[in-house]
Amino acid sequence: MTQPKNIAILGASGYTGAELVRLIATHPGMEIRAMTADRKAGQEMGAVFPHLRHLDLPVLCRIEDVDFAGIDLVFCALPHATSQEVIRFLPEHVKVVDLSADFRIRDPEVYAKWYGGEHTAMSLQAEAVYGLTEYYREEIKSARLVAGTGCNAMTGLMPVLPLLYAGVIDPDDIIIDLATGVSGAGRSAKEGVIHSEVSEGYKAYNVAKHRHMAEFDQEMSLAAGQPVEVTFTPHLLPQNRGILATVYVKGEAQAIYDALVAKYANEPFVYVLPFDEAPATQHVRGSNYCHIGVIPDRRPGRVMVFSALDNLTKGSSGQAIQNANLMLGLPETQGLELAPLFP
Amino acid sequence: MTQPKNIAILGASGYTGAELVRLIATHPGMEIRAMTADRKAGQEMGAVFPHLRHLDLPVLCRIEDVDFAGIDLVFCALPHATSQEVIRFLPEHVKVVDLSADFRIRDPEVYAKWYGGEHTAMSLQAEAVYGLTEYYREEIKSARLVAGTGCNAMTGLMPVLPLLYAGVIDPDDIIIDLATGVSGAGRSAKEGVIHSEVSEGYKAYNVAKHRHMAEFDQEMSLAAGQPVEVTFTPHLLPQNRGILATVYVKGEAQAIYDALVAKYANEPFVYVLPFDEAPATQHVRGSNYCHIGVIPDRRPGRVMVFSALDNLTKGSSGQAIQNANLMLGLPETQGLELAPLFP
Amino acid sequence: MTQPKNIAILGASGYTGAELVRLIATHPGMEIRAMTADRKAGQEMGAVFPHLRHLDLPVLCRIEDVDFAGIDLVFCALPHATSQEVIRFLPEHVKVVDLSADFRIRDPEVYAKWYGGEHTAMSLQAEAVYGLTEYYREEIKSARLVAGTGCNAMTGLMPVLPLLYAGVIDPDDIIIDLATGVSGAGRSAKEGVIHSEVSEGYKAYNVAKHRHMAEFDQEMSLAAGQPVEVTFTPHLLPQNRGILATVYVKGEAQAIYDALVAKYANEPFVYVLPFDEAPATQHVRGSNYCHIGVIPDRRPGRVMVFSALDNLTKGSSGQAIQNANLMLGLPETQGLELAPLFP
Amino acid sequence: MTQPKNIAILGASGYTGAELVRLIATHPGMEIRAMTADRKAGQEMGAVFPHLRHLDLPVLCRIEDVDFAGIDLVFCALPHATSQEVIRFLPEHVKVVDLSADFRIRDPEVYAKWYGGEHTAMSLQAEAVYGLTEYYREEIKSARLVAGTGCNAMTGLMPVLPLLYAGVIDPDDIIIDLATGVSGAGRSAKEGVIHSEVSEGYKAYNVAKHRHMAEFDQEMSLAAGQPVEVTFTPHLLPQNRGILATVYVKGEAQAIYDALVAKYANEPFVYVLPFDEAPATQHVRGSNYCHIGVIPDRRPGRVMVFSALDNLTKGSSGQAIQNANLMLGLPETQGLELAPLFP
Repeated sequence: MTQPKNIAILGASGYTGAELVRLIATHPGMEIRAMTADRKAGQEMGAVFPHLRHLDLPVLCRIEDVDFAGIDLVFCALPHATSQEVIRFLPEHVKVVDLSADFRIRDPEVYAKWYGGEHTAMSLQAEAVYGLTEYYREEIKSARLVAGTGCNAMTGLMPVLPLLYAGVIDPDDIIIDLATGVSGAGRSAKEGVIHSEVSEGYKAYNVAKHRHMAEFDQEMSLAAGQPVEVTFTPHLLPQNRGILATVYVKGEAQAIYDALVAKYANEPFVYVLPFDEAPATQHVRGSNYCHIGVIPDRRPGRVMVFSALDNLTKGSSGQAIQNANLMLGLPETQGLELAPLFP
Repeated sequence: MTQPKNIAILGASGYTGAELVRLIATHPGMEIRAMTADRKAGQEMGAVFPHLRHLDLPVLCRIEDVDFAGIDLVFCALPHATSQEVIRFLPEHVKVVDLSADFRIRDPEVYAKWYGGEHTAMSLQAEAVYGLTEYYREEIKSARLVAGTGCNAMTGLMPVLPLLYAGVIDPDDIIIDLATGVSGAGRSAKEGVIHSEVSEGYKAYNVAKHRHMAEFDQEMSLAAGQPVEVTFTPHLLPQNRGILATVYVKGEAQAIYDALVAKYANEPFVYVLPFDEAPATQHVRGSNYCHIGVIPDRRPGRVMVFSALDNLTKGSSGQAIQNANLMLGLPETQGLELAPLFP
Repeated sequence: MTQPKNIAILGASGYTGAELVRLIATHPGMEIRAMTADRKAGQEMGAVFPHLRHLDLPVLCRIEDVDFAGIDLVFCALPHATSQEVIRFLPEHVKVVDLSADFRIRDPEVYAKWYGGEHTAMSLQAEAVYGLTEYYREEIKSARLVAGTGCNAMTGLMPVLPLLYAGVIDPDDIIIDLATGVSGAGRSAKEGVIHSEVSEGYKAYNVAKHRHMAEFDQEMSLAAGQPVEVTFTPHLLPQNRGILATVYVKGEAQAIYDALVAKYANEPFVYVLPFDEAPATQHVRGSNYCHIGVIPDRRPGRVMVFSALDNLTKGSSGQAIQNANLMLGLPETQGLELAPLFP
Repeated sequence: MTQPKNIAILGASGYTGAELVRLIATHPGMEIRAMTADRKAGQEMGAVFPHLRHLDLPVLCRIEDVDFAGIDLVFCALPHATSQEVIRFLPEHVKVVDLSADFRIRDPEVYAKWYGGEHTAMSLQAEAVYGLTEYYREEIKSARLVAGTGCNAMTGLMPVLPLLYAGVIDPDDIIIDLATGVSGAGRSAKEGVIHSEVSEGYKAYNVAKHRHMAEFDQEMSLAAGQPVEVTFTPHLLPQNRGILATVYVKGEAQAIYDALVAKYANEPFVYVLPFDEAPATQHVRGSNYCHIGVIPDRRPGRVMVFSALDNLTKGSSGQAIQNANLMLGLPETQGLELAPLFP
C-alpha cells in the first residue's frame, strides 16, 4: 500500500472545513497534517466541532505556523478575498484546491465587477482551473491550482451545460429557479440564518444579484459558443443541506434527456434518473452524488430539467476532494463513495 | 349586538376543518352549531385535535344527524367528489362555502378531464361562484354556493391576474414555480408525508400534471381575453404551512408593479411589498394575509413576481370565512385580522 | 365602548416585543402609542419584522424620545440589567410590566448571586410583584410594577406549585426535565442558535446552572413552607416555540391529579388534561394556554407531571398582557383567547 | 484480500433495512446477495429508496425465493413476531443478526408479558445473545443468533450499566428521561408520524408503558445483582435521527465519571466527553458513535448522566453490523468508521 498524501486544511473552522475532515477521515489516500483557524488557534478540532471528537487530528494553528515542507496539497477554505492573499504566498511545490470564489472567474474585469475589487493574484488567477470535474477533468489532473465552483453555480451548470454543448435548447431562454439549504451560508452568526428566522419558512434572496451568475455566464457562454445570460432566482430552504435547481428550458424533451445521458452515462457521481422523474435533495444528502431529472412540460417545446446535490459535499468539499484525487494521482472516487444519509 | 350566525362544518376532522374552528373560535359573528366527521362521529373535537381542547364545541356527528333547520351557512371540508354528493342534498335555505375542488371548474368537460369523471351536481356547478374574493366579491355576496380556490392556484393567480387584466405581460410566457408546505396534503397518513421523508428535503411533485392548472387556465384565460396555458412546477417544502410562488413573466417591471398596486391598494388582506422586495412564507404564517413582491430580472423585459400566503388560512379556511362573511352580510374582515405568527 | 389604554413597548425589536405587537394588534382594550428600539430608531416596525407590515404602528424611536405623559402602561422588553436602569426613571403614573429577569427575585442577595451584580433599583425591586398570574392575581391588580416570570421557570412552577401547597409530594425529591424551543434565546445572532446547529438535534444546556432555578427556589420554598431545591435540566429543541416540562415527583397519582384540578379548574388559560394523558407543545403553539397532564409511573409512589406552553406567549408576552389587563382594570382574558396554531 | 462474506437482508424496505444497505455499500468485507420485501418483491431497491439508486443491488424478492445455500449471514429487519417465524426456518449454517424485539428478552414469561403472546421459537430464544456489543462481545463472537437491542434501551443502558457494575449509584433511584427522533417509528404511514403532527412539537409518548423497559429491567438487574426497575419517560422529537437520554442518578459525580471512563476507554465507538460536558444528537448523526457525558447536579449526591446516539446506526443497523463483523471474524470496526454528518 502506498503512503497517503499529506494534506493541510486552511480555514478548518467553517462548515466546508469540517466537511473536508469528515470525508478525509475515511479516505485511505490522504492524511491531514495541519489545520488552521486563526481565531481558534490552539484549540482541538473536536472542541470546535464535537462531531469530530473521536478523530485523532492536529491541533488548530495559525497559517504562519504551518510547515508546508512536507505538505502535498492544501485545501483552502478561507473567506473570499482572504484566499487569494494566502495562496499567493504558498510554496510552489504545494498543490492547491481553493474552495472560495477567488479563482472561479477567468476574466479579471468580470471578477472585479461581481466581487467588488481588483484581484490581487492575477497570475495565479490565469493558471487556475475551474473545478467542475465533469468538464475539466484533464486540466485538473495537471493543475497546480483548482478553483472550486460555487455550490449554486454547480447545481445549475450540471443539467444545463450538456444541453448547450449539444445545442438542444434555446440559449436565450434559460431560467434557473433554485432552492438551497442554509448551511451554504456558513457558520458565522447572522440574524438571517438563526433557526427562528429560517425554519418553517421559504423565501427568495439575492434575486437577480447573486454572484454565482458570473459562473453561469462564463461556463454557459463557453458551452453555447455565444454569450449566454440566464435568469436566476435562489431561495432559502428551512433545511441544512441540499440544493435543488429547477431549470426551465425550451427544446425537445427526448433530445434533452439523451444529451444528459450521453454526457453523464460514465460519470461516477452523476446519476440521470429515468425519464419523467424528478430528484430530491434528501436522496443525495451527505453524498457526492448529483441526481438529474427531465420532465416535459404540458406545453410542447418546454421542458423542466432538475438537479439535486448536497451543497457541502458535491457542491463544495466532496468536489474538492474529487479534484484533489485527480491532482494527486489517486483514484478519482477514493473516499467519496459514501451513500447518501436518508432519512 | 346582533345574534351570531349559525354555522355547520362538514368534514371537521381534517386540517382545513380544524383551521375553520381555530378562526371561528374568536369570530364574534359566527357560532358553530354542528360538526361532522363520519368515522369519528361521537368523539369530542378536542380528542381529535387537542389544540382545540379548551373550546366548548358540539360533539362530532354524522352528516345525516345534523339538523340543518337552524343553520345559516355550511362550510364543506369534505374530500373531492364526496362534496358534490353531499351539497346537492342540503336544504335550499343553507348557504354553502365548499373547500373541495368540486365546484371550482366552470366547464364540465374541463372538470371531467382534470378530475377524472362526470360531475354529479351539474346544476349546482352552474350557479357556483369561484371564491377568489378579490375578483368575485360582488357575485359572492349574493351567491348561495361559493367554491374555495385551490391553495396553489390562489397563490399563483393573485400576482398574475392583475397583470393579465392590465395587459402588461406576455400571456404566452408565464412560468409559475411554486413551493408548498406539507399541510396542504392533509391529515391522512401516506408515506410521502411522514416526517422522515419530508424534513431536511425538497423536491418537485406532480410536475406538469397538477390539477390546480385547470384553475390557472380558467381564470387567466378570462383575464387575458384569450386562452392562456402556464407552465407550473410545484415543490414540496420541509415545513407545515406556507406557499410561495415565484412567477417568471415578460414585461416592464414598473408597469407590473403599478398594476399590482392599483389592483390591491384597498384590499384588506393583500399587501404589495415595496418595489424590489420579496415576500417570505414565515411572515404570513397563520394569517389571512397575502404578500406580493416584484423584482426585475437583470435581463430587461423579464420580471419575477412573488406571492406568499398560508395555505390553510388565506389559501383555504381563512378565505372560506372571508367569503362566508360576505355571504352572511358580516364585515368582510371579521374574525380574520389575526397577525401572522412569527417566529 | 371605552377608550383603549395607551401602551408603550420598550425594546420592541426582539421576539417578545414582536409577540406583544402581534397580540395587541387584535386587543380591543389597548393601543400602542410608542415603540422603542435604540439601534433601530427611525425604522418602521414592518421593516424589522415583516410579518407586522400590515399594521399601522408608531415608528421605532429611542427611549428618551417617548412622551410618557399619555402612556398608561409600559411593557419593558429590554435586556436584563438594562431594564432596571430604564424603569427607575419612568414617571410614577406609568404602570410597568417588565419582561426581563430584573425584578423576579425578591431577595437582593439571591439576585446578586444568580445575576452577578448588585441590583440598581432596590426600592422598585421591593414593590415588584412576581407575575405568575394564577398565584398573585390580587397583588397584580393593584401593582405598579409586575415582573414577568422566566419562561422555563413558569413551565416548571405551574405543575409543581399546587402539589407543594397541597402537600401531596415530597418537596426534597423534585426533578424538572425540560425542553425548550430556540426562540427563547432571542433574536440576537449567536453560533449556538443558527439553523445548522439547532435543527435535527437535541441537547442539554446550562445544566445545573440555569438562572431560572432562582425562581424555582423562591416560589417553591414559599409554597412548601420550607427550603426547596429542585434538580433542573433544560434541553434545546429543534423548533422555534414551545416548552415542555417533565417533572418527576414522589406522591400518590390521584392526589396529585386532584390537587391540580382543584387549583386550576377555574383558570381561564390552564387546562388539566384527562388523567393519564400527556400534553404536547404543538397543541399550545401561539396561544396563552398551558396544558398540564399527570401519568403515574409503573413504580408505586412515583408520578410524572407534565406541562406545556408557548414560551413567547404564556411564557412571556401573553402572560405580560394578561397581567397588564389586570393592572388596567380590563377583562383578564381580553385579547388572549386566540386558539393555538396547529399544525 | 479475502473474499467478502455473503449477506442477505430480510425486510429491506424499512428504514433499518435501508440503513444496512447504506453502511454495507462501503463495507469491504460484506456483499449483499439477496434482499427481501414481500410486498415490494420484484422492485429495484433504488425505486423504493431513491438515495440508493447508484448502487448495484439485487432486486427485492420474497423470502421463499432466497437461496440461502451461499449466504453466510442474514440481517433480519422484519417486524416483531414475524421475525421469530422466519428465523426458525433458516438453514443452520446461516448466522443471524435479528433487529426485531423477538430475541431480546431471555425470560419467556417476561417476553409474553411485554409483547403480548407466547414466543414461537423458544429454543432459539434460549441460544440468542443480547447484542449489546460492549457487554457481550465474547458471546457474540461465537453466537449463531444475536438479538439487536432496542434503540431506546441501548441509549439508556450505555451510561447506566457501568455504574451498576461498579456499584457507584443507588440502583433503586434511576430515572431515564429520553427523547428520540421519529425515524425510530419506521416507514409505515401513521397519523402520529406525519410531518404536520411532529415538526415544531415535542411530547412524551408511551409513558410508563414502553416495551424497552423490559430490556432495562433485564440488563440492569443483572448488572446490579438485584432487581432493578427504572422510571422511563420517552419523548418524540421533531427530527429524524438521534436519541438522547438524560439519566438522573444518585451517587458521587467523580466516581460515576471514573466508572464510565474505565469501562469505555478502549471501546472503539463509545466516547466519554470531558467531565461536566453534555452530548448532542447532532454530533453523532449517521455514525456508529455513542457520546456519554456526566454533569453533577447542584445538589450533592445527585448526578445527570447523558448519552447520545443515532437510533438507526449505533441504535440499530450499525450495531447489527458491528455484531456481524464479530460473528464473521471480520475486524469489529470494519465499514463503521464513517464520521457523523454535521450539520
